[in-house]
Amino acid sequence: MNTPLSFEQQLSLLDERIEKSWADILENSRLVNAIREGSVSKALYAIYMIQTFHYTAHNARNQGLVGVRHADNPVYAKFCFEHAAQEVGHEKMALHDVMSLGLKNEVFDIPPALPATDVLIAYLYWISFTGNPLQRLGYSYWAENAYQFITPLIDSLSETLALKPAQLTFFIAHSDIDIEHFNEIKLMLQRTCKRQEDWDAIATVMETSLRLTGNMLEAVYEQFEAWQNGLAPRYDFLHALDNQ
Amino acid sequence: MNTPLSFEQQLSLLDERIEKSWADILENSRLVNAIREGSVSKALYAIYMIQTFHYTAHNARNQGLVGVRHADNPVYAKFCFEHAAQEVGHEKMALHDVMSLGLKNEVFDIPPALPATDVLIAYLYWISFTGNPLQRLGYSYWAENAYQFITPLIDSLSETLALKPAQLTFFIAHSDIDIEHFNEIKLMLQRTCKRQEDWDAIATVMETSLRLTGNMLEAVYEQFEAWQNGLAPRYDFLHALDNQ
Amino acid sequence: MNTPLSFEQQLSLLDERIEKSWADILENSRLVNAIREGSVSKALYAIYMIQTFHYTAHNARNQGLVGVRHADNPVYAKFCFEHAAQEVGHEKMALHDVMSLGLKNEVFDIPPALPATDVLIAYLYWISFTGNPLQRLGYSYWAENAYQFITPLIDSLSETLALKPAQLTFFIAHSDIDIEHFNEIKLMLQRTCKRQEDWDAIATVMETSLRLTGNMLEAVYEQFEAWQNGLAPRYDFLHALDNQ
Amino acid sequence: MNTPLSFEQQLSLLDERIEKSWADILENSRLVNAIREGSVSKALYAIYMIQTFHYTAHNARNQGLVGVRHADNPVYAKFCFEHAAQEVGHEKMALHDVMSLGLKNEVFDIPPALPATDVLIAYLYWISFTGNPLQRLGYSYWAENAYQFITPLIDSLSETLALKPAQLTFFIAHSDIDIEHFNEIKLMLQRTCKRQEDWDAIATVMETSLRLTGNMLEAVYEQFEAWQNGLAPRYDFLHALDNQ
Repeated sequence: MNTPLSFEQQLSLLDERIEKSWADILENSRLVNAIREGSVSKALYAIYMIQTFHYTAHNARNQGLVGVRHADNPVYAKFCFEHAAQEVGHEKMALHDVMSLGLKNEVFDIPPALPATDVLIAYLYWISFTGNPLQRLGYSYWAENAYQFITPLIDSLSETLALKPAQLTFFIAHSDIDIEHFNEIKLMLQRTCKRQEDWDAIATVMETSLRLTGNMLEAVYEQFEAWQNGLAPRYDFLHALDNQ
Repeated sequence: MNTPLSFEQQLSLLDERIEKSWADILENSRLVNAIREGSVSKALYAIYMIQTFHYTAHNARNQGLVGVRHADNPVYAKFCFEHAAQEVGHEKMALHDVMSLGLKNEVFDIPPALPATDVLIAYLYWISFTGNPLQRLGYSYWAENAYQFITPLIDSLSETLALKPAQLTFFIAHSDIDIEHFNEIKLMLQRTCKRQEDWDAIATVMETSLRLTGNMLEAVYEQFEAWQNGLAPRYDFLHALDNQ
Repeated sequence: MNTPLSFEQQLSLLDERIEKSWADILENSRLVNAIREGSVSKALYAIYMIQTFHYTAHNARNQGLVGVRHADNPVYAKFCFEHAAQEVGHEKMALHDVMSLGLKNEVFDIPPALPATDVLIAYLYWISFTGNPLQRLGYSYWAENAYQFITPLIDSLSETLALKPAQLTFFIAHSDIDIEHFNEIKLMLQRTCKRQEDWDAIATVMETSLRLTGNMLEAVYEQFEAWQNGLAPRYDFLHALDNQ
Repeated sequence: MNTPLSFEQQLSLLDERIEKSWADILENSRLVNAIREGSVSKALYAIYMIQTFHYTAHNARNQGLVGVRHADNPVYAKFCFEHAAQEVGHEKMALHDVMSLGLKNEVFDIPPALPATDVLIAYLYWISFTGNPLQRLGYSYWAENAYQFITPLIDSLSETLALKPAQLTFFIAHSDIDIEHFNEIKLMLQRTCKRQEDWDAIATVMETSLRLTGNMLEAVYEQFEAWQNGLAPRYDFLHALDNQ
């Protein structure tokens, strides 16, 4: 039998897997490339932010669901409910930022989530509803620590699209919140993860949810191409942004 | 069409129904009579507190469930999750108080909830899972404001059984918490209840959950009688309290 | 340790508890008395059948839920899904029978379930969602074998109200179906119940769901009295039946 | 406004999308290539069948869940429960076929589902739990009609691995069942799909669940490569098949 790994070693293993997954996403994502090259358009960014609106609207709910199911561990259940309370309504920031691109006078229905976004949402409910109670911490672990990877992209994007801070409320709010959240999550991992199988479940959910997010990014770009070719009628309203 | 009732009028109507329901319970409950007459025994009180342990263990969960289902109303969802976070683990106080009666050296399984307790638990999940999202506030409205009815009973009980404050952690903690909670609940009613049908749903859940609690009190007494007659084997361990 | 009881002995114990519970209900129910004395009115019967409509609408659903949760026992899960398939839509017969009393030309909303009916529904979901997978068989055991108790009442009722068979589709259909169902349920008990705790869970659910049904019958009578006194506005449409 | 499409036209559109999706899967899947080239090994096939075991174990459950949620449409609910009843326990055939490869004397835990398999399972629950009630028919539509695509692969596989019919119970049973099921599904589509948005929801679920199945096939091959390189310890027991 192996010596159990220390808490710091476990975190290092998680960090390695995150870095590798992010590297794959950043390298292969056409959305990321468009941002880096300065060729991102408002429409492409809007399609992405509409997905952000959709999955964010479920984050408080699936986080709360973990507390509902595992209230027998008071430390963890309290964390789940408090974290859920903090996440409530954040999707409205994503929607605000979409509207601020120049859509305030448009009349449109928000398009439903893309299938790849629905798959991410479905997976987050599933791992919140069943399996190891702690495993949703794997999603939080990367999501609350994503700003090192995302900040350069946001900076580039806001420069290309000439976005003001008041148009980036979702990302600005989260970069502030998430540092504190990330520390809470590390503390929660330290207090609750006792067995190697806890760490394994967390690592699997972490990597899988990150890769599903990568799939969503690629689906955003595919939808953007379809939109350019007139094949995404639900996004036709985005042509209002064409010459802004 | 009638003039809509003011917020204060709605609360008065709720208060009237609560008072009437409580009066019925206090008048008919053999458990309440035993407390008032000073004939309550440790075993009777323990059977009651074991039911309290059971339903309390579900309160954070069904409160959180309301937030999971109705996260589209951020003010209310945030309240639900925060309230759930505050309720987590309170059942452990009920259990502590049972043990402190003189059971710390006994070996026993906690008996399962009585059917009447299960019915209360089932109803609270049902009204949290379905129907008007606001209706669970009807349960909170009476439960967080029960201390005017319960405090005289607790005082009498603690005198009869010579209980110290350290043996009454559940009730002492809740009487402190609940004043604040009750104000939050009134504020939430004021902010969220817009239609008469909201008030109707709240009133129905309020009265029904209070009457089911009354049924539970009566079932406690029936179980106590069965125990005295040797017909409640799961509670046999309570004979350790007989001559204390 | 006691010798385990035989299957026949277990059924006898269930039957004894059913008979005792039914005796209590039949003796104390004012609705039953009104039927027996020939004083039942169409309105009183309609209030009862509207409750039947409500809880019956959930029976296929909570029966199916047991299969969803316990698909690891193929024999039992298959039974649950097949039984659910057979129960689908039966509430429409109850509604048909209400309408046939003389309401076909009336315009009204079906009143929501009474609180006592909601409590029964809530309990049936709860015991289907959680606890011993086999326990819902306790509900089926009495409900599919209720016709010995109910048939004399239906006969008396149909005579008093001069109802034709085409106005009693719910009861006629069920008395045919239920003999077959009851044999299936006994077979399922025989194939699945292995431990005393299975039998205990079944007995508890059996008695509790039967007593909650008794509470519902009493609530029907209370609502009828309220209706007579003009205090049940949702049932005002039943005055169309007054002189029929 | 466009003329609504006929039922046959709707099916043709579904068929076109299925064919395109299957073509992508068959072309890109390394598992499919290995089968076609006759290079598939027992271990590779076993890893695939273990995934089949996992997702099949959920099919009756998520099918039944649709009935639980939508019992207000009796035709459809009855279909859902009956279909669920027929699917119960089929995962045991998949497991039997794995064992029959030469594992009957091995002692091992069945490895948990691969993440890609979990994602498929999660998605099927999600679309069964929420959204358009009819949309799960999109999964059935391709899954019950997959044998035209799969049969040549099974034939090739059974030749390469010298499998007897008694070792292919899962596929043989399903190819028989599924012809009848497929006709039932077309009948159900005809009876229930009334609006273009029903067809859209069905098409989305059909394509997404098929593509997630394709992702699962690719994940099987990746796991096989990991196993060959000693990096999939949970599958180490498959080395018992190496020289059979």
